[in-house]
Amino acid sequence: MRVLGIDPGLQNLGWGMIRVEGSRITHIANGVVHGTGDDLAQRLLALHVGLTDVITRFQPDAAAVELVFVNRDGAGTLKLGQARGIALLVPAQAGLAVGEYAPNKIKKTVVGVGHADKKQVQHMVRLQLPGVELAGPDAADALAVAICHAHHMGSGLAQAIRRSA
Amino acid sequence: MRVLGIDPGLQNLGWGMIRVEGSRITHIANGVVHGTGDDLAQRLLALHVGLTDVITRFQPDAAAVELVFVNRDGAGTLKLGQARGIALLVPAQAGLAVGEYAPNKIKKTVVGVGHADKKQVQHMVRLQLPGVELAGPDAADALAVAICHAHHMGSGLAQAIRRSA
Repeated sequence: MRVLGIDPGLQNLGWGMIRVEGSRITHIANGVVHGTGDDLAQRLLALHVGLTDVITRFQPDAAAVELVFVNRDGAGTLKLGQARGIALLVPAQAGLAVGEYAPNKIKKTVVGVGHADKKQVQHMVRLQLPGVELAGPDAADALAVAICHAHHMGSGLAQAIRRSA
Repeated sequence: MRVLGIDPGLQNLGWGMIRVEGSRITHIANGVVHGTGDDLAQRLLALHVGLTDVITRFQPDAAAVELVFVNRDGAGTLKLGQARGIALLVPAQAGLAVGEYAPNKIKKTVVGVGHADKKQVQHMVRLQLPGVELAGPDAADALAVAICHAHHMGSGLAQAIRRSA
């Protein structure tokens, strides 16, 4: 089965697609959708079009989105919330159940510790998906979300992560 | 021309449609779309389906969305942001330019003062749209957004607001 991970952002929305077969996970594709446009509505539309295109091309069977870290910067939280709304909507429109994982849970699953930094995440994503070329840190985070979802969706898949790590 | 106003919310997304002809504004319809569903993605999907239906039925020529008040409740801001993402996306998907107005600007335009409460807004919406039946406070707020947009879109329309008030 194909699992799509999404790391939401208004400027850069990372996405990563992996294949899970029995106890094996392999990389399919990863990339970044840019929220470009003259105003906020146009930027959200660009995210919607780009992410819909990814789902149409790669036909995932499951999807998961990173939970947003809520901080004291209200304006930043609002922006991220708007992008996250699109990230959750698009898989739902395709009839997919959408998993949600906190950043700590993703890091704990992929790296082994909840407080890992971005470089450690990228390193472990590369180890678990040999030969992958990362489109950037947001795409790496999105692949980590997909790996995390593969791990937690079902017990059989959990082995895949442990073996490949 | 037909102007759609939207008051975004995850549980209750208010919408209101008015007609602007020369110096006259009249009520077309108003209502509330409910974000129902088992999880967040399904709730956002319900908002998208409901708001898309409104636009398909009433074919607005312009749309505007209320700017969200960012407060210290990060989780609340995030929820509202996600709903607001959908509120901005749907008109953009229909090819409409989407105006954005701060709550104070809407109140100042519709009531005359920026610190008006909800009852004052509802009272002035009823005065400016005689015979209107309000589907609730969120729908009233949405009609206020539409009236505000009609007022600020062009100078000719500004007269309509003053005359009907």
